[in-house]
Amino acid sequence: MAKKITKQVSTKARDINTHKKIYVLAETVTKAALSGKEPIVSVPTRSRSNTIWNKKRGILEMGNATQDRQLFNLNQAKIFMQTLLHSGSIKDLIEADKTLSLRGMFYKGLHTVAGTKEKTFVDQTESDGILEDLEVSLTALREELHIFAKKAGSIVGNITLIDSGDEIDCRRMGSGGYAIPSIVEPDVIQFKKCEAKFILHVEKNTVWSRFNEDRFWEKHNCILTEGGGQPPRGVRRLLRRMHEELKLPVYCLLDCDPWGHYIYSVIKQGSISLAFESQRLAIPEAKFLGIRAKDYKACGLSDDVQIALNDNDIKRAKEIAAYPWFQGHKPWQKEIEGLLTNGFKMEVESLITKDISYVTEEYVPQRLKAKDWLE
Amino acid sequence: MAKKITKQVSTKARDINTHKKIYVLAETVTKAALSGKEPIVSVPTRSRSNTIWNKKRGILEMGNATQDRQLFNLNQAKIFMQTLLHSGSIKDLIEADKTLSLRGMFYKGLHTVAGTKEKTFVDQTESDGILEDLEVSLTALREELHIFAKKAGSIVGNITLIDSGDEIDCRRMGSGGYAIPSIVEPDVIQFKKCEAKFILHVEKNTVWSRFNEDRFWEKHNCILTEGGGQPPRGVRRLLRRMHEELKLPVYCLLDCDPWGHYIYSVIKQGSISLAFESQRLAIPEAKFLGIRAKDYKACGLSDDVQIALNDNDIKRAKEIAAYPWFQGHKPWQKEIEGLLTNGFKMEVESLITKDISYVTEEYVPQRLKAKDWLE
Repeated sequence: MAKKITKQVSTKARDINTHKKIYVLAETVTKAALSGKEPIVSVPTRSRSNTIWNKKRGILEMGNATQDRQLFNLNQAKIFMQTLLHSGSIKDLIEADKTLSLRGMFYKGLHTVAGTKEKTFVDQTESDGILEDLEVSLTALREELHIFAKKAGSIVGNITLIDSGDEIDCRRMGSGGYAIPSIVEPDVIQFKKCEAKFILHVEKNTVWSRFNEDRFWEKHNCILTEGGGQPPRGVRRLLRRMHEELKLPVYCLLDCDPWGHYIYSVIKQGSISLAFESQRLAIPEAKFLGIRAKDYKACGLSDDVQIALNDNDIKRAKEIAAYPWFQGHKPWQKEIEGLLTNGFKMEVESLITKDISYVTEEYVPQRLKAKDWLE
Repeated sequence: MAKKITKQVSTKARDINTHKKIYVLAETVTKAALSGKEPIVSVPTRSRSNTIWNKKRGILEMGNATQDRQLFNLNQAKIFMQTLLHSGSIKDLIEADKTLSLRGMFYKGLHTVAGTKEKTFVDQTESDGILEDLEVSLTALREELHIFAKKAGSIVGNITLIDSGDEIDCRRMGSGGYAIPSIVEPDVIQFKKCEAKFILHVEKNTVWSRFNEDRFWEKHNCILTEGGGQPPRGVRRLLRRMHEELKLPVYCLLDCDPWGHYIYSVIKQGSISLAFESQRLAIPEAKFLGIRAKDYKACGLSDDVQIALNDNDIKRAKEIAAYPWFQGHKPWQKEIEGLLTNGFKMEVESLITKDISYVTEEYVPQRLKAKDWLE
């Protein structure tokens, strides 16, 4: 069992706020218990059926459906206990001003229930689910609960950040860049000075290295980010904050395949499984700069760049075409149709068949100048 | 086809050196051809049978076996062509002072052979193999051929680096850290100022975040690195350079499972598949600080931390125990025996069951003080 944490609660506004929410949750339970009623925790339903596409805002949102967790219901008693157990751990974390990974939270809550041979959690999946429930119940981002996900992604460009008091000049980060942390909330990361006019987000760190080596961000006065494939929450949240607070447009350079389209969709509208977070992670104005299905002809590429679509790719492409936000969108329908008609995928790196720096010196500058993107 | 690169060759010593080696290779071929002989390229054999465990140096090395690639041998003509094709691309890269990823090299070399329907490469695996051949033929690290692997890993601590002219103060890198680049050769990365007395290398970035948040590197005057699981070449090379040039001992904090033991083995002795690189990547003096099989009792852990070994784990543990450098090593035999007797794995993160900061405040400091490690 964890040692008792006695440190005072942090003075950060977001911590005071989250701490209070946990107290309110606990109070509901104790009040019911003390007045002889059954303690119940009510949790918004995280399911596809309770996910709503808000066309006006351009993001996925959660509906109003909720589920009760009753202490006196044999099917729900365990999940009720787990919810309160993790709430307590989060309270501990906030008071100690420490953060934990999802895996760490699992271990922190794991023990044998007194007087039984039952473990509090069967596995981490169970623990992760409870944490997602708590996010939506407390209307707090995971980061506000002091929980972090895997860290990935890096950034360089015409911006100076403050991270935990340290000044990070992203213009002087060499070939490696600054590693984007998992928690980038305003009390951790502040924006100090930014001359950049836009953000170029690329899928892979190998492509990012090409752009950094060619000093693209300097020549074009921008910020360059990568998220190691599907960008983790820290990267998405940082992009969103820079977009919103610094008014920077976000251009995405991703592969011409269903996976690239899906990454774009998550950056733009959020993911179905975590619709609640879209409010603070999604960037409805994000633009898809390429690679486009038309590029095969437009850029005069050879058949060296073709990677044949397999059955799963075709299935995924059709699924993505049926997403509500792509469904009514003619240019995107045309794009996915183009991919299927081509019968092949193309990677950003395939532009190397033209020239090593074709992507940084011709492709992206031309597209930006011509405002040739999908949105 | 790639545009012709006309830029002068870089003035960096390593580039001049590698460039010369490629000329010598090309000269051997042209000389043979012009004198009416068959052009042959001789390549050291990269196989398990040609991998030698150098007990004295404590690293894996390549033996002397070589293989010929003959132009007039139907079975070898294609691989002969691929070898020269990639040599030409590397020459281009050095002259342009640019770098490419393995994927990028595949695309750069990919085209239809004139007058045929044959592609130069069937897939990237074929291309990667040729590049590894060239490394050993030219006795040059991949990084010296201007080729980079996937980037991963981050660093903070009491050291200032210079990366491509930019000063990176790793004491002021906030919660994110400096992202370790893929190429960290001396002409890219220089060490400016280092007060640190040792390096603590951890397996996962979630554990790294715990140590960074607790300012472990500041309290214990060290450098803190992570490699996102199996550390990529950039991280290994940087560790090796800091170990060698700054005389810093390297302590590894990895999981108590065959995967953790394997990561340690690669950091220490090199990998069988790339034995050639051990000379400049391996750190024979690296120490395994934990997690140890004995910790279950020594730290008074509960059964919450136990992750049962499966059949594959048992098989892997026995394979690792039979590695030549573990075979004659009693403490390591005892360690792996302990893992098998326990019947379960333990993760670094499982120490959270004691306390969130048990690993940073008690476990590692105690082990360092007691010099309690495996080597």
